Amino acid sequence: MNTPIRLPEGKLGVLTVGLGAVATTLIAGVFAIRKGMEKPIGSWSQLGTIRLGKRTENRNPLVKDFVPLNDLDKIVFGAWDIFNENAYESALHAGVLKRHKHLDPLRKELEAVKPMKAVFSSSYVKKLNGTHVKTGGTKYDQAMELMDDIRSFRETSGCDRCVMIWCASTEVYLEPSDVHQSLDKFEQAMKENDPSIAPSMIYAWAALKSGVPFANGAPNLTCDIPALEELALVMNVPIAGKDFKTGQTLMKTIIAPGLKARALGVRGWFSTNILGNRDGEVLDDPDSFKTKEVSKLSVLDNILEPDKHPVLYKDLYHKVRINYYPPHGDNKESWDNIDITGWMGYQMQIKINFLCRDSILAAPVVLDLALFLDLAQRAGMSGIQEWLSFYFKSPHAAKGLPPQHDIFKQLMKLENTLRHLQGEDLITHLGLDYYQEFIEA
Amino acid sequence: MNTPIRLPEGKLGVLTVGLGAVATTLIAGVFAIRKGMEKPIGSWSQLGTIRLGKRTENRNPLVKDFVPLNDLDKIVFGAWDIFNENAYESALHAGVLKRHKHLDPLRKELEAVKPMKAVFSSSYVKKLNGTHVKTGGTKYDQAMELMDDIRSFRETSGCDRCVMIWCASTEVYLEPSDVHQSLDKFEQAMKENDPSIAPSMIYAWAALKSGVPFANGAPNLTCDIPALEELALVMNVPIAGKDFKTGQTLMKTIIAPGLKARALGVRGWFSTNILGNRDGEVLDDPDSFKTKEVSKLSVLDNILEPDKHPVLYKDLYHKVRINYYPPHGDNKESWDNIDITGWMGYQMQIKINFLCRDSILAAPVVLDLALFLDLAQRAGMSGIQEWLSFYFKSPHAAKGLPPQHDIFKQLMKLENTLRHLQGEDLITHLGLDYYQEFIEA
Amino acid sequence: MNTPIRLPEGKLGVLTVGLGAVATTLIAGVFAIRKGMEKPIGSWSQLGTIRLGKRTENRNPLVKDFVPLNDLDKIVFGAWDIFNENAYESALHAGVLKRHKHLDPLRKELEAVKPMKAVFSSSYVKKLNGTHVKTGGTKYDQAMELMDDIRSFRETSGCDRCVMIWCASTEVYLEPSDVHQSLDKFEQAMKENDPSIAPSMIYAWAALKSGVPFANGAPNLTCDIPALEELALVMNVPIAGKDFKTGQTLMKTIIAPGLKARALGVRGWFSTNILGNRDGEVLDDPDSFKTKEVSKLSVLDNILEPDKHPVLYKDLYHKVRINYYPPHGDNKESWDNIDITGWMGYQMQIKINFLCRDSILAAPVVLDLALFLDLAQRAGMSGIQEWLSFYFKSPHAAKGLPPQHDIFKQLMKLENTLRHLQGEDLITHLGLDYYQEFIEA
Amino acid sequence: MNTPIRLPEGKLGVLTVGLGAVATTLIAGVFAIRKGMEKPIGSWSQLGTIRLGKRTENRNPLVKDFVPLNDLDKIVFGAWDIFNENAYESALHAGVLKRHKHLDPLRKELEAVKPMKAVFSSSYVKKLNGTHVKTGGTKYDQAMELMDDIRSFRETSGCDRCVMIWCASTEVYLEPSDVHQSLDKFEQAMKENDPSIAPSMIYAWAALKSGVPFANGAPNLTCDIPALEELALVMNVPIAGKDFKTGQTLMKTIIAPGLKARALGVRGWFSTNILGNRDGEVLDDPDSFKTKEVSKLSVLDNILEPDKHPVLYKDLYHKVRINYYPPHGDNKESWDNIDITGWMGYQMQIKINFLCRDSILAAPVVLDLALFLDLAQRAGMSGIQEWLSFYFKSPHAAKGLPPQHDIFKQLMKLENTLRHLQGEDLITHLGLDYYQEFIEA
Repeated sequence: MNTPIRLPEGKLGVLTVGLGAVATTLIAGVFAIRKGMEKPIGSWSQLGTIRLGKRTENRNPLVKDFVPLNDLDKIVFGAWDIFNENAYESALHAGVLKRHKHLDPLRKELEAVKPMKAVFSSSYVKKLNGTHVKTGGTKYDQAMELMDDIRSFRETSGCDRCVMIWCASTEVYLEPSDVHQSLDKFEQAMKENDPSIAPSMIYAWAALKSGVPFANGAPNLTCDIPALEELALVMNVPIAGKDFKTGQTLMKTIIAPGLKARALGVRGWFSTNILGNRDGEVLDDPDSFKTKEVSKLSVLDNILEPDKHPVLYKDLYHKVRINYYPPHGDNKESWDNIDITGWMGYQMQIKINFLCRDSILAAPVVLDLALFLDLAQRAGMSGIQEWLSFYFKSPHAAKGLPPQHDIFKQLMKLENTLRHLQGEDLITHLGLDYYQEFIEA
Repeated sequence: MNTPIRLPEGKLGVLTVGLGAVATTLIAGVFAIRKGMEKPIGSWSQLGTIRLGKRTENRNPLVKDFVPLNDLDKIVFGAWDIFNENAYESALHAGVLKRHKHLDPLRKELEAVKPMKAVFSSSYVKKLNGTHVKTGGTKYDQAMELMDDIRSFRETSGCDRCVMIWCASTEVYLEPSDVHQSLDKFEQAMKENDPSIAPSMIYAWAALKSGVPFANGAPNLTCDIPALEELALVMNVPIAGKDFKTGQTLMKTIIAPGLKARALGVRGWFSTNILGNRDGEVLDDPDSFKTKEVSKLSVLDNILEPDKHPVLYKDLYHKVRINYYPPHGDNKESWDNIDITGWMGYQMQIKINFLCRDSILAAPVVLDLALFLDLAQRAGMSGIQEWLSFYFKSPHAAKGLPPQHDIFKQLMKLENTLRHLQGEDLITHLGLDYYQEFIEA
Repeated sequence: MNTPIRLPEGKLGVLTVGLGAVATTLIAGVFAIRKGMEKPIGSWSQLGTIRLGKRTENRNPLVKDFVPLNDLDKIVFGAWDIFNENAYESALHAGVLKRHKHLDPLRKELEAVKPMKAVFSSSYVKKLNGTHVKTGGTKYDQAMELMDDIRSFRETSGCDRCVMIWCASTEVYLEPSDVHQSLDKFEQAMKENDPSIAPSMIYAWAALKSGVPFANGAPNLTCDIPALEELALVMNVPIAGKDFKTGQTLMKTIIAPGLKARALGVRGWFSTNILGNRDGEVLDDPDSFKTKEVSKLSVLDNILEPDKHPVLYKDLYHKVRINYYPPHGDNKESWDNIDITGWMGYQMQIKINFLCRDSILAAPVVLDLALFLDLAQRAGMSGIQEWLSFYFKSPHAAKGLPPQHDIFKQLMKLENTLRHLQGEDLITHLGLDYYQEFIEA
Repeated sequence: MNTPIRLPEGKLGVLTVGLGAVATTLIAGVFAIRKGMEKPIGSWSQLGTIRLGKRTENRNPLVKDFVPLNDLDKIVFGAWDIFNENAYESALHAGVLKRHKHLDPLRKELEAVKPMKAVFSSSYVKKLNGTHVKTGGTKYDQAMELMDDIRSFRETSGCDRCVMIWCASTEVYLEPSDVHQSLDKFEQAMKENDPSIAPSMIYAWAALKSGVPFANGAPNLTCDIPALEELALVMNVPIAGKDFKTGQTLMKTIIAPGLKARALGVRGWFSTNILGNRDGEVLDDPDSFKTKEVSKLSVLDNILEPDKHPVLYKDLYHKVRINYYPPHGDNKESWDNIDITGWMGYQMQIKINFLCRDSILAAPVVLDLALFLDLAQRAGMSGIQEWLSFYFKSPHAAKGLPPQHDIFKQLMKLENTLRHLQGEDLITHLGLDYYQEFIEA
């Protein structure tokens, strides 16, 4: 990492696929922060600090003062959506933000964010029916139209660089297949309208081909395939994914490492969710749920490693349920029951009830990913950005590398990557030297 | 750390102050493990693995195979208690372990563990009234008697080395005072029966003076004073403390770092406990509770660092309650309500209900501390062992160093200390090399 | 009710269909009570009291001292089951009762209870595969075999009267059809092996035809059809059903009347269950779950009456989930989230976590039903016994009468029925007279 | 009850002692209902229905259509408070109602409700310091001033009748003493400024003396003393109390009767509350808490009657805690753990987490009490109104009568009283006749 990081000049364009609850919450939030109405709570890139050097040096700058991130004042937003509603209208429908307090004062700015027509097919998201969509042509043609959209957006918004983030619904479950194995085959398949090419892949291809970093906030396969990994390297563009880590899985990747740290056994982990937003509706379709379930289930095995700790985890029964429950709207609520085993086999239970707000947790994740992907690109880092695993339920890692789900190892990786980029010592928390000095004194 | 670690030869004597619920659960467990009846669940030293080298090297030995720990088969137990009940009788009264399944099959071995007379004064633990106590003489004289006890124990049990662990009740709140500031003053105060010298200090002094490492499992001041820190260095003996991290605080130090990692605000954290064992009864006394409360309250401030993150934590309202509730016996149950703040100030709540078993969680902590303190001594490490912070609610750190409460940083510190002792690379979770190789290939 | 109640002479035979977790828990419990090892906790008939007359009269006899119930010492047990295990073996497998404490001391008596061969077809309970079943012949022939079983049981056990209780699994969902509309059609259908005749109906028919009262502890249709209602009247035998009210639904019928009493609105009620016993396994089959779901869902509408209280309940979203979760075994756990609306439309939430034990709650319900059905028969009451609604999730009521689910109205009905049987004044809780006397004084 | 009930003519004056969270929530709500903005949710008098006659008659009028209650359109509000803020200002400070949605549209009406100067002494409520208080004179003189206030209010508001409801803070614990035993002694003590005469008693005396019914919403002794019971009869005025039943105790009186109905044992019941409003602050004072604790603790014993059911309840350990927790404001939250015992002594647990809103639950209780006390007076009922027990944590009953806490018996009593007043048959839920007709048909 000897090349200096290019500084963020001009404006950064943040393009979201989907202008629904998550995207509008992000956009309204950034506008509110610019006006001094709110602080960027939930954004580690904005409010987090990073320790440098020894504890006694007391160097703990804000992350955003430590690495050259794009400033929040210099972001422009663009989006695609299957409904032709501007960000104000869509935010009203989403019901996440308070109208009097947060939407009306930002109405003008929000109304100016109008969605471009989406690439969409209800074969991939069965519960939705879009009306504001690109029609005609092959998947390859649609990708070309997206590239045109990106070009126009750059010109009209006058931004210097762009990033694209998938903030749309979960697609039906797809296994990687032959057409995903190389870029050539993939592009051929696009031209032939192969059903293995999901809309999210078309977006990702168009982004990468346009030199735009791409992050995938849903559990869809999308760019977690050799073809698009290859394209990212060819184009020298960073990619990251997949599935924003919020709510229940966030808690799971916080707590499971803690139980493992203490060598406590886990016999069962039952997780249920109730939520009433569009996401909940989409996940009522078993095919979309399967995609999500696979993403959610993998977490525990990876963290607890039953093969390495058979006494503790070999019989772990893990069950995840998602229930569409309209009375809660966007206020997703999770309930977990964890059956743990302690000394001499005695049983204990932990029950966690998280009354969360889905989009409120997701919005700052989108912001951080946009800023860090942009940083990565300016730092010359391309392909899979495993150091951003911190933000994902199913971290995208190099082939053959087990993904890291433990949020604390993810954070360590994130922090040490930034330290490394800026030439600071990596932190190991060894700290024996404090005591050696003490002894010698 | 160039001196090789002396290997554990002969037997290790584990001396517990208190032969109550925690100690008898430990002892019965070790006996059950030796007989193959149970596995050492909850003991990181026995079941934990430690990653060495790069992820792709797949080197993950068990901790106990990596560093030369004393074997469980070569432990002998001794104890002091204020009641003259052997370990079998005391375990029956404690009601932690199942009689048919776990006590009767071990009856003979347990009955052989008989307590020595305790140093005790009900001025320091108001709810208890001991009958099996040393009487007469000054505090200094009592310390001498304890040293005699240690000597006799060594002889009769034939052990090579000893460690002492405080597994007794919480004493009333004491502030460090003048007599605690140097070893000379301390020893003078012992001779003068100064009320600032609590029983736990007498035990610690006797241990250190006998060359026996000492760990403090309660929130008492004990050896967290300059006088005993000095003695530990003089005698070249390791010490660690204080207050075993189990139950609610364990969960707190797991979850708080997770919230902070995500830059989520915390407005309030309400923690209540119900428990019905002797510990609960002792803590019903406001003076003992104060000692515990101070220990429990410090955790959040240290992890969240409101001064560094005023937007997120400056208004944090933290309240901890402990309620004596006999119906639950040793089955301590905690309930936490955490009020968190997300993007744009929206409020969320996390509620955690932990149905735990106090002694079941504490016993393997005692075991690990005994084994690691013994390791430290054989490795020539003396004084405060901050790398054992992992096991404590109020980690004892060098003067001027803020204690580290984040359990994941504590684990990192513990693991990297072991790697360091064995000459392995420290782990930083950077991992960029996997991707550079990928790129170059 | 002028005819005096015939006193319980001789022994009562309690015949359970199914000798699984519920039946063996009942049987072991009755044996334990007889030996003075336990008290009949959970049995209102044994431990409940009933107020008679005015409050100031202080007449509150035990229920069992007020009405002439069969004595627990004079019960003999019989059962049918699809597995050939005696009650001791089956109880061990069920894992409900502690072996050392409760099964071994009763081993001899339990081993003496051996199941008769069951009428069974896996078309009606898809997840089970019985081996100890009657084969060959039509459904009518099987019913005849059951009547022979009853006759033999009476003779060998020497009992004076019998009752039969369905304690077996939930059958697949059946709608009432033409063959259920009259006794003639029903008996013809039995002879023709009509698939509308489920095994539980064959048992019920055989019981009634033998003059044996019948209660249905599962949500199956069973005797909730005109044909068997007719047979009950013809034979002068009482019947009651259906689906034992335990666990989550018990709580629901306690809490919903309370919310309604206070005119609090309910927008949503989400109920989830985790359980790992055979019942959970059977309900993993969607067809069996449907039968259960219909039974569980009807409760709220009946209690809250949205048509009479549209402002409060017309938008109620009620969802019930059951999840097979093996780590919990018979320890069924429910979690409910209730979204309630108060003054000026403000929202509140109630969350209930019930860590229950399925068979422990069900066993005393079976006992009470057996004793009260026997009482009813001796009192000359035949047909549907609506006053036993108290014990059921889906109370069987006369055609055209809405079933009463409110547990407090059910209790009132139960108590006033007993008062009525014994010629005591019914209680109305008016109580103005206390104050009129006061005023006049 | 042969005298016909006088119809409500003219306007009803509702006088609240205290114009804080509860009173302003009530007042704003009534204004909002009048304007058609909201429905009177939580008010049984307005939205409840009452069944008349047999189930098959289908007669279920609204309560307010069945008995002649004062109309919501014909209420005028008055109040005393220790702070000189009008209802708009006070409601803003209380933070219960949404400003944009509920306070600003009603601003004019709310501002018109201005408090009269209060009778107050911080000896009785230690955490508050009022500034808008009557000064000088004896307690008797202050009572006279209150009577003047009532007279002026009647004149300026033009109301026909008044009721007074204590909606102010909990006073310190007082035992009934000699001066409370007769009206003469009481009035003498007022003149002598006896400390046994608390401010709430002065209000009650002034109300009764003015012919105004009085209800006590706090756990203070107030009119639960012979002197004021006597005055109520002398003046022919109804009284009711004490301590509005909301939140945790409401749930307790719903659930405890359910457990008892099923003869389930209760070994322990731990109840904790967190709340951050003025009420929480006041209860942080141990003397005020004691008053509340006595009120809250009596509930279980009365419902479960351990003396009648020693097997089930004799060892019940009941603990109630209230914690001041500012982050929650008026959003009182309770958590209960109930340890129950079932068949053969097996243990189960119920945990209830109620996220409630204190004033939202209390406001409609105040409304119903005002309307029913007014009804009682028009019906010629004087003295203690035990039939209003439904609304209180510590129901005021005639001397020697155990108060009834079971909410379902309370509701029965309330309903049957109304049926009795209107000459309808009392309901007993016997219902055997439905089946006798069936049999005969």
